[in-house]
Amino acid sequence: MTSAQMKPGEPDIRAAGDEPVPTAAMVHDAAERIAGLVRETPLLNAPSLDRIAGRRILVKAESLQITGSFKLRGASNRIAVIPEDHRGGGVVAYSSGNHAQGVAAAASRLGLPAIIVMPADAPAVKLDATRAWGAEVRPYDRQNESREEIGQQLARERGATLVKPYDDPYIVAGQGTVGLEIARQAAAMGIRPDAVVCSCSGGGLVSGTALAVRDTWPDMAVYASEPAGFDDIARSLAAGERVANDGTGDSFCDALLAPMPGEVTLPVMRHTLAGGLVVTDDDVAEAMRLAFAHLKLVIEPGGAVALAAALSGKLPKEVETVVCVASGGNVDGALFSRILTG
Amino acid sequence: MTSAQMKPGEPDIRAAGDEPVPTAAMVHDAAERIAGLVRETPLLNAPSLDRIAGRRILVKAESLQITGSFKLRGASNRIAVIPEDHRGGGVVAYSSGNHAQGVAAAASRLGLPAIIVMPADAPAVKLDATRAWGAEVRPYDRQNESREEIGQQLARERGATLVKPYDDPYIVAGQGTVGLEIARQAAAMGIRPDAVVCSCSGGGLVSGTALAVRDTWPDMAVYASEPAGFDDIARSLAAGERVANDGTGDSFCDALLAPMPGEVTLPVMRHTLAGGLVVTDDDVAEAMRLAFAHLKLVIEPGGAVALAAALSGKLPKEVETVVCVASGGNVDGALFSRILTG
Repeated sequence: MTSAQMKPGEPDIRAAGDEPVPTAAMVHDAAERIAGLVRETPLLNAPSLDRIAGRRILVKAESLQITGSFKLRGASNRIAVIPEDHRGGGVVAYSSGNHAQGVAAAASRLGLPAIIVMPADAPAVKLDATRAWGAEVRPYDRQNESREEIGQQLARERGATLVKPYDDPYIVAGQGTVGLEIARQAAAMGIRPDAVVCSCSGGGLVSGTALAVRDTWPDMAVYASEPAGFDDIARSLAAGERVANDGTGDSFCDALLAPMPGEVTLPVMRHTLAGGLVVTDDDVAEAMRLAFAHLKLVIEPGGAVALAAALSGKLPKEVETVVCVASGGNVDGALFSRILTG
Repeated sequence: MTSAQMKPGEPDIRAAGDEPVPTAAMVHDAAERIAGLVRETPLLNAPSLDRIAGRRILVKAESLQITGSFKLRGASNRIAVIPEDHRGGGVVAYSSGNHAQGVAAAASRLGLPAIIVMPADAPAVKLDATRAWGAEVRPYDRQNESREEIGQQLARERGATLVKPYDDPYIVAGQGTVGLEIARQAAAMGIRPDAVVCSCSGGGLVSGTALAVRDTWPDMAVYASEPAGFDDIARSLAAGERVANDGTGDSFCDALLAPMPGEVTLPVMRHTLAGGLVVTDDDVAEAMRLAFAHLKLVIEPGGAVALAAALSGKLPKEVETVVCVASGGNVDGALFSRILTG
């Protein structure tokens, strides 16, 4: 990115390497690029939920996105900018979850072949959902193989473009379209929120969303929410550098277990976030039950951490109106049943 | 209604009594009247669900409507036309379910007091939800009291306006705004459906929706879907007159147990519907599971009968693209869990 591309007032942030630094302008470009490829998801609320929370809560229901999570946005934006002469090689990604489906669907809709490296012991429902989008699945043995090596080898052999889950400016910009929709939808409801909270693993969603909402509301307080034991973002923000999880954590938020913040995402987060919030699995389960009862939403554990922060008192008390991004809804029926029945 | 108010091409239908006959024009008026009082709900689809169904299915997610069902639409339209000098008396309704919440919320938002006559043994969650909208609840004894008599007495004593659940042209017109949104949203997706299916109890939703969608697509095939044992609409359409359920039926679709079609709604249905479809509780449970897995929607049993018809082969095979209205999502967690786990 040249400085001419930066909008006045945007923070002067530099990511590692030669990649452009994600900016609000890139999020606007992404929104234009992926219009028609992704669904505008609703911004929902329920007075009965607000009474329980003691504040007004708006839920951005990315659980209703095509593929059941926001991951389609970044993948669509990334794949759409692959140069014409590289499209034939298709794309490769490694993921056991929402990113797999997002890449598979985006590639399918943009007409590129996709191969997804997935653990051989991943739930059949996730393998099937990825194949259902027309992707080839390359299973690997978690104990004896490296998914990164397999992915890089496939990229070399096929000339495929590697689509990273978060540490890529085009992925960040695509996820940020969630924030543009939030700003537009809240304004249409006559609401100016005091804070926006996103679930956070590698930081793609919260980085992009922060760029987008702060383009409309420059002083908006944006928070990352993480499960206890996987609070690498909160600790990295506090430390001012990338700090990894210690690997001893245990959480049922299977979508949020990235080991450390991204090289692209952490600089953005340092310049745009008000802080990191940490919730327990119990907080998350209660948020899932309340979203079911009051909003009629199916939210997966990793998708409910932002709402959990707003409901459990982890968010500062003075926040009267908050937007919580419910980032995904891919949870199997048996687990969802167990959570509903406590 | 005078004939001058009827649009050319509209069927010449006459309801019993002095009430205006519901028309597409009344649905358009309702949409203007209740804009800002109701939520535009999304029209959702999932390719993985389409593969299972063998056809393209679009689900109109009224489960995501404020109060968790479409009932808010009709109630808002009905209450909004109460003359100024009758507003002080407020409104009265009897319902154990979605209509109770719809009337309570509509009255609250329009600034009128509401009293809802509900069975004393109704689930606490439904009594609470109704009270949460600021309505007074008048419990009655199902065995020894008549809710109609109580409602009429309250109406006399307080000068309150009775808001019927379906047999009122303004209720029909309000529910019909679902159909206007379907027509607009499908057109925006570039889709011309072959059929529209609504769940059906007294016929308010399907009557209004049929008027609305056939205003855009005059030959659209609109079907009512009902649970087996409560197929009074299907039988009334076949018989050409109002036929009641025999009272021996048993279904877990608690929202769809009206004893017979309405006097206002049946004439509309006779002129606008392609027919009635009948589904089993097993069909409904499977539709709820598939909506959870593929669309991340919480649909209550009565809200899933339209989708059940499209998934179970009850809908004619030649229908390649169908819109199913998911009319509500008010189901308690214990029942939903049991259904998810089969």
